[in-house]
Amino acid sequence: MAADGAPSFVHLPLLAAAGETIEIAGDEAHYLTRVVRVRPGERVGATDGAGLLATLEVIACGASVEARVTERRTRTRPAELELWCGAPEGDRGDWLVEKLAELGVARLRLVDAERGRWERFAARRARWERHATAALRQSRAAWRLAIETPAPLAVVLADAGAAAARWVCRPDGEPTAGRVGATPGRTIAAVGPSSGFSGAELNALQDGGFAGLSLAAVRLRTETAALAVAALWAAGTARPDARAAGGAGGA
Amino acid sequence: MAADGAPSFVHLPLLAAAGETIEIAGDEAHYLTRVVRVRPGERVGATDGAGLLATLEVIACGASVEARVTERRTRTRPAELELWCGAPEGDRGDWLVEKLAELGVARLRLVDAERGRWERFAARRARWERHATAALRQSRAAWRLAIETPAPLAVVLADAGAAAARWVCRPDGEPTAGRVGATPGRTIAAVGPSSGFSGAELNALQDGGFAGLSLAAVRLRTETAALAVAALWAAGTARPDARAAGGAGGA
Repeated sequence: MAADGAPSFVHLPLLAAAGETIEIAGDEAHYLTRVVRVRPGERVGATDGAGLLATLEVIACGASVEARVTERRTRTRPAELELWCGAPEGDRGDWLVEKLAELGVARLRLVDAERGRWERFAARRARWERHATAALRQSRAAWRLAIETPAPLAVVLADAGAAAARWVCRPDGEPTAGRVGATPGRTIAAVGPSSGFSGAELNALQDGGFAGLSLAAVRLRTETAALAVAALWAAGTARPDARAAGGAGGA
Repeated sequence: MAADGAPSFVHLPLLAAAGETIEIAGDEAHYLTRVVRVRPGERVGATDGAGLLATLEVIACGASVEARVTERRTRTRPAELELWCGAPEGDRGDWLVEKLAELGVARLRLVDAERGRWERFAARRARWERHATAALRQSRAAWRLAIETPAPLAVVLADAGAAAARWVCRPDGEPTAGRVGATPGRTIAAVGPSSGFSGAELNALQDGGFAGLSLAAVRLRTETAALAVAALWAAGTARPDARAAGGAGGA
């Protein structure tokens, strides 16, 4: 993890003020003591997952970790992507969540479409939340993916608000991928379930201002399309000045 | 699969001439009879995975499937992506292969890097080849992903040949993702293992003409970076005239 000396990074929803001491318990303590094996005196990065980044100094390690907040800084989110996604096949939701979280997607709205509904969300949610936290550690970002309860497209559409950029991924869309991520503020990208959106759903999206977007010359599975559009958006927002929190990683 | 009436699609390395009858056995026969349940008289699409597309008419279904080749057409590959990839953590190679195949990557070269080697390739290869075939069925493409035996970067570098576009994904690269896929012919994209390429490896890539490419404002895991760069390339090549073989799919 720290091949280049980059500090470990954890998710702490409640971050104390600079100078104060906090106790880290649960999964994050386990991660620090058992996975990255921090020691007293070492620095650790942290985020509340909502724009606040902090540096901590480890004081003591045991069943929990005691640490002092040495620095806090708030980040302003330059752009955010909200992904509206129909259900993929089988258990493909697991890595869909992991990868969207890692790519910095702000919000995943699960769309119960006419041709496919999200099954067993309640049973899967806890695992997906853990994936989102693990991805946050990996990406060292200041924001954590929010996962919403499944809802029909009509309900989700009513929340589109003032999003400036709206895309619906469809094979007959335009090859305008270069424009994804070019718009500041909130972008929404909609991806159909494994059997696709119905004609009525596509019409509703079009009426809602969603422009058709072609992602590839070939058919893509639901989860692949979702990840592809998130990757396009992430690349569009990969400005050097947004990379202050970056580390070594695979790439 | 055939929600919109699109025919099933199979991988047949040896495709007979138009008018001739062939016998389909093994995995592809199982797929046709047990998964999509084709019946005599139905049409089925097929590819040899090397640029040849065909339409078959099913004659008889049993343990194997008898079919007549009614049409054959050869496609010219407008552009191709070769991905050089270091080892990701754990079993993440499985879906890496699936997703790269689905996005139309031509060739996956597994790089044994200084900080990470591909383990158990021989044991994993058969499963990965099945993933590549399944993705080909899904994507309905004319080319199948080729997976190469792991080799050190120096060996792989010697095969770069005349590739016009060469990228190495790194957090300190340039945010020039919009240029990926804009070059006709062969593109190479290199992604480091989970602990990253060493300084010497990055220097060797730079000397080999590989330009640094930043994929996101945050750190990405190896497999996520590989998929992101493949998605950028796929989007860059998503021209309408390349979509003749497309179907419905999730997106």
